[in-house]
Amino acid sequence: MPIKVVAFDADDTLWVNENYFREAEGEFVKLMATYASEEDTMKILFEIEMQNLGIYGFGIKGFMLAMAEAAGRISNGKVTAAEIDKILSLGKAMLNKPVELLDNVEDILKKVQQRYKVILATKGDLLDQQRKLEKSGLEKYFHHIEVMSDKKVKDYKKLIKHLDIQPEQFLMVGNSLKSDILPVVELGGQAIYVPYEITWLHEQAAPEEQHNGKYVEVAKLHDVLNHL
Amino acid sequence: MPIKVVAFDADDTLWVNENYFREAEGEFVKLMATYASEEDTMKILFEIEMQNLGIYGFGIKGFMLAMAEAAGRISNGKVTAAEIDKILSLGKAMLNKPVELLDNVEDILKKVQQRYKVILATKGDLLDQQRKLEKSGLEKYFHHIEVMSDKKVKDYKKLIKHLDIQPEQFLMVGNSLKSDILPVVELGGQAIYVPYEITWLHEQAAPEEQHNGKYVEVAKLHDVLNHL
Repeated sequence: MPIKVVAFDADDTLWVNENYFREAEGEFVKLMATYASEEDTMKILFEIEMQNLGIYGFGIKGFMLAMAEAAGRISNGKVTAAEIDKILSLGKAMLNKPVELLDNVEDILKKVQQRYKVILATKGDLLDQQRKLEKSGLEKYFHHIEVMSDKKVKDYKKLIKHLDIQPEQFLMVGNSLKSDILPVVELGGQAIYVPYEITWLHEQAAPEEQHNGKYVEVAKLHDVLNHL
Repeated sequence: MPIKVVAFDADDTLWVNENYFREAEGEFVKLMATYASEEDTMKILFEIEMQNLGIYGFGIKGFMLAMAEAAGRISNGKVTAAEIDKILSLGKAMLNKPVELLDNVEDILKKVQQRYKVILATKGDLLDQQRKLEKSGLEKYFHHIEVMSDKKVKDYKKLIKHLDIQPEQFLMVGNSLKSDILPVVELGGQAIYVPYEITWLHEQAAPEEQHNGKYVEVAKLHDVLNHL
């Protein structure tokens, strides 16, 4: 069955994202330096992010709330109002970052949308993703945005049902094996994996999951064009 | 042109929501009582919510972040870690609330979905809305959820384009004149207004906007069935 819909992941597939989280974490570690080591700060922050993922979901606001909570724990209840304020400022700065596109994205989208329905499939905050899409000037290439609360098999099932197509008619392009590639392949869809330079710990797939061989891996987003 | 898609707003149309915000604000006022009067606390909180609406959007996480920031300002930089912790707990309790359905919603949806494509159109957090939909047991009646970053004319235009229908084939049911009714009517769509007992200040429409007479107002959600 020929492909009908090509879905692109957004963060770290179309534009830089993970780097901003790493930078903010670096600032947070500095802010907590009087209370704890970098290692302890990062450990507690990640624990709190994971504890709250089920109610906060993915995105910058949840990350801000996790930093605020972690600061309380790391400082043993001594965190100051000024430090909380600094945490909120770090998050707001992330929400106001410019959009840095990867690998001549516009040229790729222009070509792909001539032959397929192109959508953006992301699990970040809707508002934040829309902001980035608007700033990027890429909005015109997408039929619409699908914001998913998670990217597991059941979420892709819903998405494909909503698109009124069969799994074989769906191709996903993204930088996360765990979220963009493996669940789509499991459903019988197609997937092109474009690794990014950094991967958040939560997104790392186990090595045995990485080699089922049912997807294509390319070095750069542009190479996607060779496989369509 | 006959109606093809009926969209229901979620919060305070299908289930209780605004009451939980009012309760949390009440708790926040108590928490800030050593620093400021109820009036001042509420004024600063609302100011900060409005300042951040553009970057946070709607929903509980943005409300939590606004309370944390407001606490810093209200306390003049004296807010304690324990108070910030309490604010985070207030928000988490909201995210874990049970779902209280309004006016025998299930019976209404069962009937409406026999004749139309039914969708949920909401501007809250996606994850939070999905959680409520799953807890409610109503998921099976909806073709899908449309999470909108805002509910202005341009957002409904996008939604209607995405549904591949004409505005006249779209009917919106909701409790907010400003967000659910007036923009849809402006686009040439149809709308049924079901007022709820409380309306957030931000959602209140000016009186002159309320009487353009191009929508139907009903007292209870069940009465929607008389107009379909």
